[in-house]
Amino acid sequence: MTTCWVKASDDSGFPVDNLPYGVFSRRGEFPRVGVAIGDQVLDLSLLAAGGMLRDSHWFASGTLNAFLAAGPRAWQSVREQLTFLLTEPAQRPAVLPALIPMVEVLMHLPFHVGDLIRFQASIEHETNLGRMFRPPSDPLPRNWPQMPIGQYGRASSVIVSGTPVVRPVGQLRGPGGTDPVFGPSARLDLSAEIGYVVGVPSAPPHTRGIRPFEDHIFGVVVVNGWRAWDIIAWESTPLGPFLGQFATSVSPWVVPLAALERARVAPPAQDPPPPPHLATGRPWGLNLTLRVELNGKLLSEPPFATQYWTGPQLFAHTSVGGAPLRTGDLLTSGPVSGSARSQFGTLLELTWNGRDPLGMPDGIERVFLEDGDMVRITASASGPEGSR
Amino acid sequence: MTTCWVKASDDSGFPVDNLPYGVFSRRGEFPRVGVAIGDQVLDLSLLAAGGMLRDSHWFASGTLNAFLAAGPRAWQSVREQLTFLLTEPAQRPAVLPALIPMVEVLMHLPFHVGDLIRFQASIEHETNLGRMFRPPSDPLPRNWPQMPIGQYGRASSVIVSGTPVVRPVGQLRGPGGTDPVFGPSARLDLSAEIGYVVGVPSAPPHTRGIRPFEDHIFGVVVVNGWRAWDIIAWESTPLGPFLGQFATSVSPWVVPLAALERARVAPPAQDPPPPPHLATGRPWGLNLTLRVELNGKLLSEPPFATQYWTGPQLFAHTSVGGAPLRTGDLLTSGPVSGSARSQFGTLLELTWNGRDPLGMPDGIERVFLEDGDMVRITASASGPEGSR
Repeated sequence: MTTCWVKASDDSGFPVDNLPYGVFSRRGEFPRVGVAIGDQVLDLSLLAAGGMLRDSHWFASGTLNAFLAAGPRAWQSVREQLTFLLTEPAQRPAVLPALIPMVEVLMHLPFHVGDLIRFQASIEHETNLGRMFRPPSDPLPRNWPQMPIGQYGRASSVIVSGTPVVRPVGQLRGPGGTDPVFGPSARLDLSAEIGYVVGVPSAPPHTRGIRPFEDHIFGVVVVNGWRAWDIIAWESTPLGPFLGQFATSVSPWVVPLAALERARVAPPAQDPPPPPHLATGRPWGLNLTLRVELNGKLLSEPPFATQYWTGPQLFAHTSVGGAPLRTGDLLTSGPVSGSARSQFGTLLELTWNGRDPLGMPDGIERVFLEDGDMVRITASASGPEGSR
Repeated sequence: MTTCWVKASDDSGFPVDNLPYGVFSRRGEFPRVGVAIGDQVLDLSLLAAGGMLRDSHWFASGTLNAFLAAGPRAWQSVREQLTFLLTEPAQRPAVLPALIPMVEVLMHLPFHVGDLIRFQASIEHETNLGRMFRPPSDPLPRNWPQMPIGQYGRASSVIVSGTPVVRPVGQLRGPGGTDPVFGPSARLDLSAEIGYVVGVPSAPPHTRGIRPFEDHIFGVVVVNGWRAWDIIAWESTPLGPFLGQFATSVSPWVVPLAALERARVAPPAQDPPPPPHLATGRPWGLNLTLRVELNGKLLSEPPFATQYWTGPQLFAHTSVGGAPLRTGDLLTSGPVSGSARSQFGTLLELTWNGRDPLGMPDGIERVFLEDGDMVRITASASGPEGSR
């Protein structure tokens, strides 16, 4: 562990090994790019303007997109320079004016989202859905172990964490599953997920094969993929969820892959073996643990290390078809669930579709989200840490 | 019919009642906004720079988005000014320098696509799919007559007509529907559709109800929503088509709603009656006839007037949930099919999933698309005309 001269509380989640990127402003100022360190934000636009960052014209911007598109060499160079500035005590006087207490800043959506691409990459989540809604069929669809199953989402529905989410109205499955009714969703859920942020575009045909994950993906965000299950239940035949996935919250900080190197683990064995286009280079299981809190009460701790389909596989599958990927495209994992109930990533699974309500500190049992609820999802890695 | 002083061949598709907008350039020049008139393109950036268009700072741009966002008053004002300039003979000398022969220009994607939202709005198409793939169930899913069924697509896959489309590779349903195979799609199809282009954004909550279609939607494009049915057949359970809808071609010209006023007709009766959020104002059935040609041979003439779900209903349904619509969002109708075989909008339906191959002029029977094929889809209205 490198020693940083910025003093931080131990639980800030932002040690110098992390250095996630975000877009911030203080009241009345233009949004610009910063990096979280301890309890502060380092203003990269100020460092760049002061000549303290070489080759860095990306940071006086209201989105990370230009930096995302700059590619792995630029990402590595900036990270090395920031590490130097924050660990070399002689740099302290020059860097100090660019540090702003985090409590003083407003965080913005960190990047302009191109396409939102939603996967369902957790075998435990998919199996739980199958057990609840598709009995007596095999809980796992036949194609599921052969390739990552996904769908597109509405990019304009991606919002930065902290933005209030309004309960959607829509056509819902009526009582007894028969005629629909129109009204506010009564089965509003959270979904604890991880998202991969595309940096460098990718376009077919891939005559020499798809380039490595690390050459394209910049980093990860923590995601809450809100769901209105009663809208979804009625609308999903035959094209899948549509308006019921109405909002997607992302963490304001994008953790670069470089910060996650030490959290890399071997993913679970895959049976059947993945087809050649999904047999992707170095193992990129990630030993992250999510933490889902509702109004301050810990609900579950979904493990990301056991995800069946890894980031490189999601990226390869999305790239192999006929369509391109662009800077700012967001690939989400879908709900992260482990095998134990304490590891489920949705209220739907935690309450087993309402059969097992959750006890809450106020003594009132809970199945789905109520107006005024506060959901908090964070992620931490064994070494460096991601945050929300 | 107003008389225009620009001479045009009768079949140009671009009389002065149409005036569709696009983005064009000549070799080595910057893309900018133009309007099609006869066999020529009227350079709006030049007219604006010359002071011949009031209040018009939107046209020296490589996309229509700024003009789309400007709203119905601006759309109407520009249209009235253009109509005056092109029908008043005294204006001819001043306007002539801004006319460029269409054969000299390259057309670009006319707008930056926000979200791509794909519907399946034709009851005949949905019924055909059901008869082919879901027997003995009712061919129409139970939710289908209650609301428009849709899904999101990949916005980055939208290309302007004329851009070559490459046959995608992917995991396909294997012979006999069992284990998958990986390779190029062998069931490549066209899909004749109409797309609605969002001009003015819309965001919930809609406390006073959703504003009229005409306040938000700028106009329509002709769409070819390419499909790889063998990829779709394998991947679609349970989330719907994903990589098998790999490219979406749109016409370079966006026809404003104002040009389609005279093509408005009453849509088919809806049974059951639409729910309140889909009981939308003035009737907006559109008496357009699509024309699908393969290598110069006319395959079918799908009628758009009989579409079950109308543009205002697609717009209202997309708006009513929790997510916003943005300038440049594209709502596509899905395959347009009439009740007769000569009106089907996909090869899948025209060949009834391969059972009835099409005879082609070269004497070779055809089921799906072959490399080198040229697909042409056009649309015309009884009064004004759209084009591709």
